[in-house]
Amino acid sequence: MAGSPRRTAGRRLQLPLLCLLLQGATAILFAVFVRYNHETDAALWHWRNHSNADNEFYFRYPSFQDVHTMIFVGFGFLMVFLQRYGFSSVGFTFLLAAFALQWSTLVQGFFHSFHGGHIHVGVESMINADFCAGAVLISFGAILGKTGPAQLLLMALLEVVLFGLNEFVLLSLLGVKDAGGSMTIHTFGAYFGLVLSRVLYRPQLEKSKHRQGSVYHSDLFAMIGTIFLWIFWPSFNSAPTTLGDGQHRTALNTYYSLTASTLSTFALSALVGRDGRLDMVHVQNAALAGGVVVGTSAEMMLTPFGALVAGFLAGTVSTLGYKFFTPILESKLKVQDTCGVHNLHGMPGVLGALLGVLVAGLATHEAYGDGLESVFPLLAKGQRSATSQAMHQLFGLFVTLIFASVGGSLGGLLLRLPFLDSPPDSQCYEDQIYWEVPGEHEDLAQGPLRAEEPETRA
Amino acid sequence: MAGSPRRTAGRRLQLPLLCLLLQGATAILFAVFVRYNHETDAALWHWRNHSNADNEFYFRYPSFQDVHTMIFVGFGFLMVFLQRYGFSSVGFTFLLAAFALQWSTLVQGFFHSFHGGHIHVGVESMINADFCAGAVLISFGAILGKTGPAQLLLMALLEVVLFGLNEFVLLSLLGVKDAGGSMTIHTFGAYFGLVLSRVLYRPQLEKSKHRQGSVYHSDLFAMIGTIFLWIFWPSFNSAPTTLGDGQHRTALNTYYSLTASTLSTFALSALVGRDGRLDMVHVQNAALAGGVVVGTSAEMMLTPFGALVAGFLAGTVSTLGYKFFTPILESKLKVQDTCGVHNLHGMPGVLGALLGVLVAGLATHEAYGDGLESVFPLLAKGQRSATSQAMHQLFGLFVTLIFASVGGSLGGLLLRLPFLDSPPDSQCYEDQIYWEVPGEHEDLAQGPLRAEEPETRA
Amino acid sequence: MAGSPRRTAGRRLQLPLLCLLLQGATAILFAVFVRYNHETDAALWHWRNHSNADNEFYFRYPSFQDVHTMIFVGFGFLMVFLQRYGFSSVGFTFLLAAFALQWSTLVQGFFHSFHGGHIHVGVESMINADFCAGAVLISFGAILGKTGPAQLLLMALLEVVLFGLNEFVLLSLLGVKDAGGSMTIHTFGAYFGLVLSRVLYRPQLEKSKHRQGSVYHSDLFAMIGTIFLWIFWPSFNSAPTTLGDGQHRTALNTYYSLTASTLSTFALSALVGRDGRLDMVHVQNAALAGGVVVGTSAEMMLTPFGALVAGFLAGTVSTLGYKFFTPILESKLKVQDTCGVHNLHGMPGVLGALLGVLVAGLATHEAYGDGLESVFPLLAKGQRSATSQAMHQLFGLFVTLIFASVGGSLGGLLLRLPFLDSPPDSQCYEDQIYWEVPGEHEDLAQGPLRAEEPETRA
Repeated sequence: MAGSPRRTAGRRLQLPLLCLLLQGATAILFAVFVRYNHETDAALWHWRNHSNADNEFYFRYPSFQDVHTMIFVGFGFLMVFLQRYGFSSVGFTFLLAAFALQWSTLVQGFFHSFHGGHIHVGVESMINADFCAGAVLISFGAILGKTGPAQLLLMALLEVVLFGLNEFVLLSLLGVKDAGGSMTIHTFGAYFGLVLSRVLYRPQLEKSKHRQGSVYHSDLFAMIGTIFLWIFWPSFNSAPTTLGDGQHRTALNTYYSLTASTLSTFALSALVGRDGRLDMVHVQNAALAGGVVVGTSAEMMLTPFGALVAGFLAGTVSTLGYKFFTPILESKLKVQDTCGVHNLHGMPGVLGALLGVLVAGLATHEAYGDGLESVFPLLAKGQRSATSQAMHQLFGLFVTLIFASVGGSLGGLLLRLPFLDSPPDSQCYEDQIYWEVPGEHEDLAQGPLRAEEPETRA
Repeated sequence: MAGSPRRTAGRRLQLPLLCLLLQGATAILFAVFVRYNHETDAALWHWRNHSNADNEFYFRYPSFQDVHTMIFVGFGFLMVFLQRYGFSSVGFTFLLAAFALQWSTLVQGFFHSFHGGHIHVGVESMINADFCAGAVLISFGAILGKTGPAQLLLMALLEVVLFGLNEFVLLSLLGVKDAGGSMTIHTFGAYFGLVLSRVLYRPQLEKSKHRQGSVYHSDLFAMIGTIFLWIFWPSFNSAPTTLGDGQHRTALNTYYSLTASTLSTFALSALVGRDGRLDMVHVQNAALAGGVVVGTSAEMMLTPFGALVAGFLAGTVSTLGYKFFTPILESKLKVQDTCGVHNLHGMPGVLGALLGVLVAGLATHEAYGDGLESVFPLLAKGQRSATSQAMHQLFGLFVTLIFASVGGSLGGLLLRLPFLDSPPDSQCYEDQIYWEVPGEHEDLAQGPLRAEEPETRA
Repeated sequence: MAGSPRRTAGRRLQLPLLCLLLQGATAILFAVFVRYNHETDAALWHWRNHSNADNEFYFRYPSFQDVHTMIFVGFGFLMVFLQRYGFSSVGFTFLLAAFALQWSTLVQGFFHSFHGGHIHVGVESMINADFCAGAVLISFGAILGKTGPAQLLLMALLEVVLFGLNEFVLLSLLGVKDAGGSMTIHTFGAYFGLVLSRVLYRPQLEKSKHRQGSVYHSDLFAMIGTIFLWIFWPSFNSAPTTLGDGQHRTALNTYYSLTASTLSTFALSALVGRDGRLDMVHVQNAALAGGVVVGTSAEMMLTPFGALVAGFLAGTVSTLGYKFFTPILESKLKVQDTCGVHNLHGMPGVLGALLGVLVAGLATHEAYGDGLESVFPLLAKGQRSATSQAMHQLFGLFVTLIFASVGGSLGGLLLRLPFLDSPPDSQCYEDQIYWEVPGEHEDLAQGPLRAEEPETRA
């Protein structure tokens, strides 16, 4: 495969060795640094003598499970649309996310919950790690089909660190609000992946053109991913927000925004389609843009009307992006964006950041009452004006774009290291390089079972 | 496609214009009327100074997410059984339900939570809107494959209003109990759709007969829908019931009822099948009848034994309906019921309403203790006897059948408006009219990858 | 089919009669014995005058739903990998589990919640019944494709009783801890099924060899099962543990263990694969071993590092088992293990039990503080030393292996009763014996729709 026996032998070892090395390293770091927090440690929890009902678990675990479903089922199956890359799409999602969960527990732990020489973990670190895995999978979407699993693990190794750093700068240093991650997850993940894809540009990719499309059943599998992402996005945005009205409002706003992006996606897809036909690519992706676009503002007093407008715009921009901008991105800017993450995460993420600037700038004591403390603590304490918060939000977007671009460039250089196993241009989007692939319908073609003559098969 | 260029141009515009028009209208109505309720509004929630743990979100949001999964994954994939209509089944479910959520938030809001000129929204309105979307999707099941998406949106526009009105008459005016919607959702949705299908009767539908069946993989996709509906039905019935023992008991009764309908479905399917073979259509549908049949009574003191008997009867009636009644429905009554909603929602819904009559009529202070107040408040206050409650329940069924029949007739006349795009008889159950459809297995047929000679493909 | 008309007539009746008989029997037993517990009974709950927020429902129902998803979606689809046995895999899972839920409610109820002549039910009995169904489905995995549905129901009838008895001996008599069921569910279910498969050994099974493999799409369906099992396993292990830190810690440990088993599975699969290729069988199964291996110890103070090590070992052992041990199991020990349950549940279950011995033996008052009372009540009360607890844990494993082996032997003798319908060697792994099976892609092969000439199809 892929030319020479030597490369095959190299490939045989790169993935397993890297897995073992990374697992060994994180295990050692876990042994040294990671400890149960006061909600998961038997002694600490009982020492404090809390009521069990107060354990954070009961407030966040159901949301965590929805997020977990989005990461593994949602992202995994969304990428199964490629006709010959289903095993890799769902399998590498599984591998990448599993590693990212461990690695980001460490990285985010150092930045956010490092006390007394230890990282303290519980349901909040689980949610945050899943969020970071989400960003890695968004980047994966841009380069889907054009990289090997060892390359992907190296990308995750780098991206998780930069994700954690960017998140720390925004949330902790700049006091930016971004619960659902329009900036930290979607914008960061998308532009990291797009810049990385630019560095890995393959001028001869048309050699694999015949495998870039979907087939009927692969599109249905992809809809499993889409629908699970769509239904659980309210949990995604609300999982890390403040308890009470915060989580409740965030979920509600996201729910409305998604209904609007669905309607605008169907409208625009039919408008720009041949003979008014709908395009599954749009439905699978752009309908989700409503979740991305309120990632920053859903916890704010966006109003239900505001959520509808935001979702509508996001679905529109995203659908038009798939139709008109993706081809230009490849032909003019040499960015080959397999899943169209620029349309689903990039543009809606930036829009979402700007929407956050607007809604933060409009925040008043009147609108939020005593709830201002939980949404904009710096405003409530009088340390910042609404306009200043808006400016900080805008600066957060700028920082994110810098981190993503520099990170994507570094990632691209890393993945181009010549000894790394990478599929040849003619074998992109092809499972058989990395997987034992069974045939298709060998037996089914034989028509109805003929039990009278079983010998004919033996 | 479909004959003339003029019709094609018409189709090209009907769906997008209708989407945009409806989205614009609901957005304006949202701006004017919809406001956060006291559990989602930052100022109102904090002004009341509640404990965050008391926020309704924590009592109902996990159930909401299960219901949401049923509507979009459950209904969407259940209808994917058709071999050439998978994109439309899951796609139009997505579109219809997204619109219904917005529109029913307004309609139900006017009837149930309109105070001070505003509709107040939160997790309860989210659940109720999903319920209304469920009724719309049941009706969709009856006419699946025979209508265009613009027609479906118009149907939803009408049906949501009538659903809201019927629900208001039953729950608010008549004091009927129907938490899981045996009447308001299943009976209403089924007979609305069946009457509508009668009005749209196509005598030449056998032209599309070859596409009405399933293929092996489409039946497996449909099982995704079935199983998600089955596992989450306890959440469906319990989502809107009173907190505490109410939700707990409702979930438990539904769980038992579903196990019994599964056993009776397998038993009856094998009994009536050719050579004792099981039929996937029965398993996919009739096994769910146990959830429908306890929609009214699951919150009552039905007893676990009662739940088993109810589920057993529902699975039996439903399976026999698929085998013997559906053909008659088409041949004699000219009702073409694509998904057999009469068997899954119609008959079990009516049975469920009658079971509610029975169980309500048997209610005693002894059996419910102080819990009578939450299940039958009018009985607890002495304003109604158990017999009177039972009579009201029965009258509620009657009202529902009237609303559904009149509504379905109106809907049928609306959908027959001559300028509306509708698939010709020869193109029913066919995705290609509305979707860009990729081929199937283009590449997979090429057999094992031959990497030694990649040039042969370039 | 299957030879003679007489056998066909026999098959026609065995399944439905058994379903009806079993349903009738459980219904009668429910009527006599099963009652709402004090959390689901309207009178009892309100008599106690609790706060609704204290109802067990709110602490366990979200976890229950995750477990329910694992049993029906997870196990059901995991077994769909067989190319011609998808209907049976998901359908018989559905049937078996539905029956097991009813029957184990009774059996477990007699052992665990029988007071005043009645079994009292609520969310905890729902979770426990699902657990028992899990064990039955594990055994089903060993004999998948080689037994008829009536045989399977008889197996469940026996296995549920022995499961309940073994569980009672371990948890109630021996005071063994096993929240996530490394012993009671995985070890028991696996060895019950393996011994049963040994008794049913078919020397001529190669007649069905061509149907034992997967096809491309069936492997993707199986990944639906894998991923849902993987994401919800933290809920599985934590569903029955003590509230507060107990559930929280259990979920966290399981989450870490699973990430590690995923990494080691990918590493080992590539290491032992041809040309370094990954094997879907390993990814679908061995990646889950991390959930099994911490089934006993996840509620203990395992530490995050301990969870990683445990998961890593389990994934390694499981992958190597699929590669090297399964062939030997068949050729030398005459155990035909269709799904490789020995690798996913057997060895990791035993490992998990031993890990529980170790972690229990290391328990100290210092590490658990006042939490010792909820994890090891007998230690906290001073009735047992940590070493003694460890010995009891080890003895529990021994007891489980005895119960499973004897039970599997009895089950095998039962299923070999000559009048029972069983597929012939040449028709194993074949849906058509038990199901009406549609063709595949009849219509799709016709290429693009030709609407101009619809007559050609009519």
